[in-house]
Amino acid sequence: MESQETPLKPFYNNMEKNSSNMIPLTEHSPHKKENVCIFGTGDFGRSLGYKMLQCGYSVVFGSRNAKTSSLIPKGAEVLCHEEAAQKADIVIVAIQRQYYNFLTELTETLHEKVLVDVSNNLKINEYPESNAEYLAQLVPGAKVVKAFNTVSAWALQSGTLDASRQVFVCGDDNKAKQMVMDIVRTLGLTPLDQGSLLAAKEIENYPLQLFPMWKFPIYLSIGLSAFFFFYCLIRDVIYPYIYENKDLSFFVAISIPNRVCPILALILLALVYLPGIIAAILQLHRGTKYSRFPDWLDKWMLCRKQLGLVALAFAFLHVLYTLVIPIRYYVRWRINVYVISQINNNKTDPFNNTNGWISDSYVALGILGFFLFLLLGITSLPSVSNSVNWREFRFVQSKLGYLTLVLCTAHTLVYGGKRFLYPSMYRWYLPAAYMLSLIVPCIVLAIKFVLIFPCIDRPLTQIRQGWERNSKDSEQSHYNDSKSAV
Amino acid sequence: MESQETPLKPFYNNMEKNSSNMIPLTEHSPHKKENVCIFGTGDFGRSLGYKMLQCGYSVVFGSRNAKTSSLIPKGAEVLCHEEAAQKADIVIVAIQRQYYNFLTELTETLHEKVLVDVSNNLKINEYPESNAEYLAQLVPGAKVVKAFNTVSAWALQSGTLDASRQVFVCGDDNKAKQMVMDIVRTLGLTPLDQGSLLAAKEIENYPLQLFPMWKFPIYLSIGLSAFFFFYCLIRDVIYPYIYENKDLSFFVAISIPNRVCPILALILLALVYLPGIIAAILQLHRGTKYSRFPDWLDKWMLCRKQLGLVALAFAFLHVLYTLVIPIRYYVRWRINVYVISQINNNKTDPFNNTNGWISDSYVALGILGFFLFLLLGITSLPSVSNSVNWREFRFVQSKLGYLTLVLCTAHTLVYGGKRFLYPSMYRWYLPAAYMLSLIVPCIVLAIKFVLIFPCIDRPLTQIRQGWERNSKDSEQSHYNDSKSAV
Amino acid sequence: MESQETPLKPFYNNMEKNSSNMIPLTEHSPHKKENVCIFGTGDFGRSLGYKMLQCGYSVVFGSRNAKTSSLIPKGAEVLCHEEAAQKADIVIVAIQRQYYNFLTELTETLHEKVLVDVSNNLKINEYPESNAEYLAQLVPGAKVVKAFNTVSAWALQSGTLDASRQVFVCGDDNKAKQMVMDIVRTLGLTPLDQGSLLAAKEIENYPLQLFPMWKFPIYLSIGLSAFFFFYCLIRDVIYPYIYENKDLSFFVAISIPNRVCPILALILLALVYLPGIIAAILQLHRGTKYSRFPDWLDKWMLCRKQLGLVALAFAFLHVLYTLVIPIRYYVRWRINVYVISQINNNKTDPFNNTNGWISDSYVALGILGFFLFLLLGITSLPSVSNSVNWREFRFVQSKLGYLTLVLCTAHTLVYGGKRFLYPSMYRWYLPAAYMLSLIVPCIVLAIKFVLIFPCIDRPLTQIRQGWERNSKDSEQSHYNDSKSAV
Repeated sequence: MESQETPLKPFYNNMEKNSSNMIPLTEHSPHKKENVCIFGTGDFGRSLGYKMLQCGYSVVFGSRNAKTSSLIPKGAEVLCHEEAAQKADIVIVAIQRQYYNFLTELTETLHEKVLVDVSNNLKINEYPESNAEYLAQLVPGAKVVKAFNTVSAWALQSGTLDASRQVFVCGDDNKAKQMVMDIVRTLGLTPLDQGSLLAAKEIENYPLQLFPMWKFPIYLSIGLSAFFFFYCLIRDVIYPYIYENKDLSFFVAISIPNRVCPILALILLALVYLPGIIAAILQLHRGTKYSRFPDWLDKWMLCRKQLGLVALAFAFLHVLYTLVIPIRYYVRWRINVYVISQINNNKTDPFNNTNGWISDSYVALGILGFFLFLLLGITSLPSVSNSVNWREFRFVQSKLGYLTLVLCTAHTLVYGGKRFLYPSMYRWYLPAAYMLSLIVPCIVLAIKFVLIFPCIDRPLTQIRQGWERNSKDSEQSHYNDSKSAV
Repeated sequence: MESQETPLKPFYNNMEKNSSNMIPLTEHSPHKKENVCIFGTGDFGRSLGYKMLQCGYSVVFGSRNAKTSSLIPKGAEVLCHEEAAQKADIVIVAIQRQYYNFLTELTETLHEKVLVDVSNNLKINEYPESNAEYLAQLVPGAKVVKAFNTVSAWALQSGTLDASRQVFVCGDDNKAKQMVMDIVRTLGLTPLDQGSLLAAKEIENYPLQLFPMWKFPIYLSIGLSAFFFFYCLIRDVIYPYIYENKDLSFFVAISIPNRVCPILALILLALVYLPGIIAAILQLHRGTKYSRFPDWLDKWMLCRKQLGLVALAFAFLHVLYTLVIPIRYYVRWRINVYVISQINNNKTDPFNNTNGWISDSYVALGILGFFLFLLLGITSLPSVSNSVNWREFRFVQSKLGYLTLVLCTAHTLVYGGKRFLYPSMYRWYLPAAYMLSLIVPCIVLAIKFVLIFPCIDRPLTQIRQGWERNSKDSEQSHYNDSKSAV
Repeated sequence: MESQETPLKPFYNNMEKNSSNMIPLTEHSPHKKENVCIFGTGDFGRSLGYKMLQCGYSVVFGSRNAKTSSLIPKGAEVLCHEEAAQKADIVIVAIQRQYYNFLTELTETLHEKVLVDVSNNLKINEYPESNAEYLAQLVPGAKVVKAFNTVSAWALQSGTLDASRQVFVCGDDNKAKQMVMDIVRTLGLTPLDQGSLLAAKEIENYPLQLFPMWKFPIYLSIGLSAFFFFYCLIRDVIYPYIYENKDLSFFVAISIPNRVCPILALILLALVYLPGIIAAILQLHRGTKYSRFPDWLDKWMLCRKQLGLVALAFAFLHVLYTLVIPIRYYVRWRINVYVISQINNNKTDPFNNTNGWISDSYVALGILGFFLFLLLGITSLPSVSNSVNWREFRFVQSKLGYLTLVLCTAHTLVYGGKRFLYPSMYRWYLPAAYMLSLIVPCIVLAIKFVLIFPCIDRPLTQIRQGWERNSKDSEQSHYNDSKSAV
């Protein structure tokens, strides 16, 4: 899975691998494209130059010492910065930000040229202004465009671009931006116009990010997991050790994870639907949808997909942990002991129809819940969610999502059964962990149940269609509005 | 999973959220794009205007009462309809169809302007002609383009566009269409050219559809599920209740679903391959591939993918229902009883090698069948099927598909074993449900087996390459034809 | 799953199906696009012509006998080759390569025209030069463009284009190529510019390929599976048959596959990471990253994704084979016998805490390993890997990948436990198969452990950032280099 090779263009890679194949393409190519100058002969500059030569561009390198080394791709010239810049309309600045200041001397040469900033920083928000904006200040006459910073040198060299085919481009000059986007396309990459140079800061931060939308869901689930793990450890391992002197420490491997996982799956799934409910209450209270939600609610709503997928991961682990129960040594031993004790006592437990019903129905509810959960997960794959319309997406994520929550909550309720009545369940006054897990989902479902009453649903729908309780601005609203539910 | 946020553009959303970030982009953006006029200051019109302002357009709203309300996005003017229309070449009509008629008064002003119809209806085929065609009739001199109706106001406001990034565009004037498609691209959406204004009706129906291709497979499977559920209920619950007075009602939760699911998976999988076989027989009979198939066959062939995926869902449920068997209370109780009865009778059942073979081989066949089934499902994900060539797609869907059908049919046959010979299997003269499920797949496999004989396969291949039994038009056929199998 | 229908454009297909709908679109379409001439009235030519007529082009067929047959799409003319070619600027050559030579007579007529070669061959590398280059030699004055060879006639007719929406285009004349790419876009397909006509050979080979990147992983895994299957057969079936006269032949169905699958999953997963380690050692040894790796290593690195996915398939089968253990007749019988023997001997095996720990922890390690493995698999789906940045992709595939390998190796080690010490495990001096499977992963992990020591990691990182041990070319290196790890 490590390879970034797409199956789409196997022959493209064949070309890359066989360098003798490549040379004629470069030399005989009858339609030379425009000249490009690259400042800097470091790894990235060379890789980009190599790729551009392959795609038919004339490449000139600008360097302090204008000597062609063996590392410079064949077919490219190396000149001093000034001479190199004069030869081309586009100058790619493939050097580090701290060396930019020499460019002020070239201001005249670079006047009206397109300067492409490809740099990245080492830390998020390392400098007050983005590298591209800094470059624009240094060389006032040039048209600065930010691009290529998300592409890696290795990917350019090897032609394997799975994770970095997207090139974010921004700049204040539309024509310059268009020229750069054309180059991006010619190199086989996908340009994404991000607007004016103000976006450069975000673009420079982008490749330094590590799953930013996943941070909250993952930290939350680590925190909750730790809490419930120790909670169960106290109830299921330490309590029996102290009171019954039983060493059940091996519960740490499967039994306790198999309590923590379903609890987290259920709570996180409920947390996916909680912000929508809070938003609905806020909108009802305010009588408009045009005032901003508090920041925490906005952030929460934006990471619902990630919360749901983490919940799905826990549900999946719960399924696996449950299915291996019968092959565990401990479980087999306990069943053995039970059978042998029945024999020795010469009695057979009769079949209890209620137990049959409870056991089968909580398992069946769990299976159906997990099935719908998986369906939600598949629908949130980018390629699948792109191929459904808005109404279908809403149907799956809202209707099926709530059905999943109902099934999973019912699964937990039936699993518990009447057990919450037994005093023996309250070890050290601590209720069983599954009871704690029911709090959030039950609250969510109860409020949702209230919200779908017509007397509450009608004003909410109107508000979401743009209606304002305190406004008389009653312009005709658009039909699309019926889809604008949160 | 509810969020429509793509991980691709987290920084884009950061911008959106922080409105103070946004204002400079709007005001300082040095390259103002063309002027756009929006008729209607409803929710959708305002959302679209807000988005367009963000992307550098000058926006003028046309309204009956030309007062700027607090809801109008900052930076946009509000004028009366006529004045607003004069200021721009593109007029977006964000009002409902029933208010269109006032536009006839503006015919002169709107002459040669691009009129963009963004409206939707509440029901499929609500009016005889599409809203866009109606608009074109009302304002004869304008160039009407249909667009944006699949985008929701909420998605435009929040920048979360997972499910509605596709904008279908159609119109009779190519240049006008191109202008609109450029705007769509600038807003970060994907335009899809759907041809002339005749396509507007389909485009208007599109966002009202709810999984149209899934309807037949889902209704069919609901019908078949209900039938087999009651069939099994009669045989497995009601029969023993009447004749043996056993209450097995809890079978409803797992035992009976675990009969219905594999039956449906097998039948639906066979129904995926049946239309191809019918088509082959029709083509052989007619001696040409150029006459149309009957309508039902065409429709059936177009929903084969959906049929297969529903079958996969049933197979997945069957796997889960089967794997939980050993943790069911009923199953554990029965095993207990069996062991205890052996002890009490003081005899041990010897190991039966044939039973070992049958038990293991039907399970193994089922596992391999499910594995291939899952592979087929993964290959039908849009992003995967887009990255294979035609030959590879055919190989997976046809060769692996038939292998899956063979394995699943064999799984069912071996599961049944010799049981169909026992009279006790025919309760109330009803055969076991699994026997019924074998009818369709066995027919499909038998006919397919005949069709791959060379003496039948050769003429069929020729017909599919364009050869006609009754024609003398023997132009050279194209090699691609070898791929044109159904 | 067989259908190639995308859910995206249901209404598009509705149009296609209803031919009466189509005719007005063709006839009334107010903006006729350019004229196109198609040489050859075979199946592919007719299909392409039909599709082009639908999209508003005027189509003229060139044929030896200029008679309109019933097969020619309505609205298209049929003329002799010369007349037809004169009517259009683009001539699509939809005839087989062996009939190309008549085109030399038309050299004058075809001068400066765009000639589109759509042909395929029957075998990879059937001719020394590509069909398109051969065509360019035959008609020197024409601008030859290669395109459409990946599209099938059937897909064009039925509008179902799932697997062949990509059209690879190449040609020496940029303007001609652009014209063809515009047509491709108008037909609703995606053009992919592949550069000069030299790429035609690869483009012609492409549709004949059958999973080229998967060949090595699949052949390797078939070979290894066969070896380990027979190895286990000898140890687990033949040995007990000879020495204990036990017939365990039914082990062939589940027990032996369930040994082979985890072994292959583990070995293949280790083989995903081995080439990276070999590359690191080579780079350290050579002191540079700019010398080519040996060819086998390059090829190996390019199919790592496929190796990993095959490994995941084996791991998945292992999970299924393991989870069905408790429902196997043999396993149930053995447990019965064990219980009854305990009763008869009137003793109860006490619970062994160590066994409890070992049993639970190897299962838990397996579950976690499989879970991460699945995560790696999901991340390598094209649509998912396209939506993460380079740093995230590296994190998942490298960090999580090694964690998966560690967990799976630990799973196998704990499963084995102390068993490797028992002489009874060495039947015919053959160690248990699981021991063999540990060799490669342990080597990989041991070397990787050495490589992450700072004294080795630092120079390696420098080399991968473009630093050369034997060079003085110390230009500033680019920050992106930090991402250029193998």
